[in-house]
Amino acid sequence: MVPHLITALTGPINELEQRILDSMPAIERWFRLEWMEHTPPFYSSVDVRNAGFKLAPVDTNLYPGGWNNLTPEMLPLAVQAAQAAIEKICPEAKNLLLIPENHTRNMFYLMNVAQLARIFHMAGLNVRIGSINPEITEPTPIALPNGDSVLLEPAIRTRGRLGVKHFDPCTILLNNDLSAGVPGILEDLHEQYLLPPLHAGWHTRLKSRHFECYEEVAKRFGKMLGIDPWLINPMFNQCGEVNFAEGTGFECLTANVDALLNKIRRKYKEYAINEKPFVVVKADNGTYGMGIMTVRDVKDLEALNRRTKNKMSVIKDGQKVSNVIIQEGVLTNERIHDAVAEPVVYMMDRYVVGGFYRVHAERGVDENLNAPGASFVPLAFADSAHLPQPGAKPGASAPNRFYMYGVIARLALVAASYELEATDPELQDAD
Amino acid sequence: MVPHLITALTGPINELEQRILDSMPAIERWFRLEWMEHTPPFYSSVDVRNAGFKLAPVDTNLYPGGWNNLTPEMLPLAVQAAQAAIEKICPEAKNLLLIPENHTRNMFYLMNVAQLARIFHMAGLNVRIGSINPEITEPTPIALPNGDSVLLEPAIRTRGRLGVKHFDPCTILLNNDLSAGVPGILEDLHEQYLLPPLHAGWHTRLKSRHFECYEEVAKRFGKMLGIDPWLINPMFNQCGEVNFAEGTGFECLTANVDALLNKIRRKYKEYAINEKPFVVVKADNGTYGMGIMTVRDVKDLEALNRRTKNKMSVIKDGQKVSNVIIQEGVLTNERIHDAVAEPVVYMMDRYVVGGFYRVHAERGVDENLNAPGASFVPLAFADSAHLPQPGAKPGASAPNRFYMYGVIARLALVAASYELEATDPELQDAD
Repeated sequence: MVPHLITALTGPINELEQRILDSMPAIERWFRLEWMEHTPPFYSSVDVRNAGFKLAPVDTNLYPGGWNNLTPEMLPLAVQAAQAAIEKICPEAKNLLLIPENHTRNMFYLMNVAQLARIFHMAGLNVRIGSINPEITEPTPIALPNGDSVLLEPAIRTRGRLGVKHFDPCTILLNNDLSAGVPGILEDLHEQYLLPPLHAGWHTRLKSRHFECYEEVAKRFGKMLGIDPWLINPMFNQCGEVNFAEGTGFECLTANVDALLNKIRRKYKEYAINEKPFVVVKADNGTYGMGIMTVRDVKDLEALNRRTKNKMSVIKDGQKVSNVIIQEGVLTNERIHDAVAEPVVYMMDRYVVGGFYRVHAERGVDENLNAPGASFVPLAFADSAHLPQPGAKPGASAPNRFYMYGVIARLALVAASYELEATDPELQDAD
Repeated sequence: MVPHLITALTGPINELEQRILDSMPAIERWFRLEWMEHTPPFYSSVDVRNAGFKLAPVDTNLYPGGWNNLTPEMLPLAVQAAQAAIEKICPEAKNLLLIPENHTRNMFYLMNVAQLARIFHMAGLNVRIGSINPEITEPTPIALPNGDSVLLEPAIRTRGRLGVKHFDPCTILLNNDLSAGVPGILEDLHEQYLLPPLHAGWHTRLKSRHFECYEEVAKRFGKMLGIDPWLINPMFNQCGEVNFAEGTGFECLTANVDALLNKIRRKYKEYAINEKPFVVVKADNGTYGMGIMTVRDVKDLEALNRRTKNKMSVIKDGQKVSNVIIQEGVLTNERIHDAVAEPVVYMMDRYVVGGFYRVHAERGVDENLNAPGASFVPLAFADSAHLPQPGAKPGASAPNRFYMYGVIARLALVAASYELEATDPELQDAD
């Protein structure tokens, strides 16, 4: 199924697409050279928004779920990339332990776990799923709606190693974003490969740090392409010490929202864009689409209702919000059957292996789509992830658009690699 | 299109398939460890024969043509593997020069050249085609039957470098098997990456050396799997100084054919195989399906007609045959619409990226199918190259069979890497 797409492709985005297509060899070389200096995250997904006049990543996930939303055609690419990734890190690997999130009743999430296990099994590893959920005290098979099943086994810690009964893995793959911090069972695993490293978890990550790195990447990439980096970079500010529940710290928030809205207005004026600017306020360490609100006017902040305040106060795993990032809102002008859509690009190591559209019929073009009610339309990415069609008219070709999305997602991947270097405790110790 | 397959899957092949599927993680790990010690050829294709009771490679090509026979679904895998291959060898690469065979009128071959150029362009390189055919004296566009076109440009040698006008590549990809030896224009290119290296050409290669290496690989692999390596290894003998035109050197040939037929008979008896043994006599340095004949009885050798003698005397580029390999014939029991078929597996670096069936309606199960009149049915390999279906009954599942073919092809790839090490002039000098 190829989704029916409508994109408001007017103005600069056509130029950008043309520039990206024309520069493909230079772009691919640029990435190759980046990966000589920096290590890509083991796997990732990037939410991309295409405003027609601007194209930018808005969120980068280093513990991607949703692998079950990729089409079967994408599986061979994911398997091949997984083989490349494993070979690079631990060619002698035999056994892989997958540590999922603790939710045991979310069938969509568990289908993702089953799909990940399948990918790594097909890449040639023995795969078992080790749950760190205290409720899982014995091997627990769970039947899935698609006819598959997963077996959750309690993860067992023995001295320096983690495993499940009769299974001693050399590699541990986390699909748990550690929002609540690193559980003791995962600490000090010096004898095994832990992927991604613990400091990729949301107890350490900050969206502001990621987008600071991304800004640097976008500037360098923009310079190479000869484009205004703003066309691919969402501007942002940040505030610490905001307490939504008690309504404190709002001066900072208001001032920064106002300043950012003004900056966007100036950019819109420069490019003669006739849209209403907006910003998105997000918990700086938030995930799962939680702790996010759209602000179109500073006055909106004065009139926050209890429900919104509650929504912004607490995020995944009950973590309190105090630091927020105020990010330039990027409209999404992608539509599938009239519903607002945003592309999500999946990567394994440095390779784009697939993607899908996150579609939300009840949300606006300036709202977060990662919310209950979202559905997923797989992209026909297999044909096209890296495969632009030279000669095809910009905007007219889905493959060309997908290539462009893959480039933007990979820029976010480079930013994530900078980010992980900046927070790597081992590199810190060396300083 | 998924080809309609009939395989006579009786006896050991089912067991072999089951063993291979059960051992997948061990097999993949085995390959990963091999590639830590050895460098896979840059690209390759392997002809595989499936006799039902035995599965073996019969030819390994290090300058594969026929890329145009792969389905569009396989393209992303090939591109991803090409990116991995390029990145490993020369990440700073920008420009790639493709050196094709000298035939300028074989449209099938030129479609292969166009497809290779497309793959490497999509991997992010500027690709030009540099012909070393003296007839190509200026840029020559050639329209192809599928609507594509290729531009052949005369390759230009300037001091230590090879290029075409206004194009200085850092990497040169040979798709010319050098049957006639290394032309001067390709010698001493120390400043550029030449892929594959010159000693991979048929002026240096010997089938007997390849299958000697393969035998070693098959023994080690068989030991790991706990199987008789004969199930995956075609036995062989060799003879030098055979002159088909003059009928000299036939004593050696007859003795070796007889000895090998007897060895096969004993093996058939051991496995209660009720088939007539045969051997295939091939020019030891032959290619393009030339210089090949099937021998079912030593008496056949006495009765060679003039046509067969001529066919065996001279191979590609007018090279004379004097050394031959006598290889155990492996029946092919694959059929597509009643025509005899053999799978051909394509690899880029260490990755299986696709394949097709070579089909010949007018040939028997014990004959060479690489001959005029052959056609090509793409395999639905994209879904399945590395993707066995655990739980599916052996023999019942096309994906499982394809996985098995990919394993056998990769064993031949490992053998080719040993072979290239043994003939590498730089490694020889170091001894």
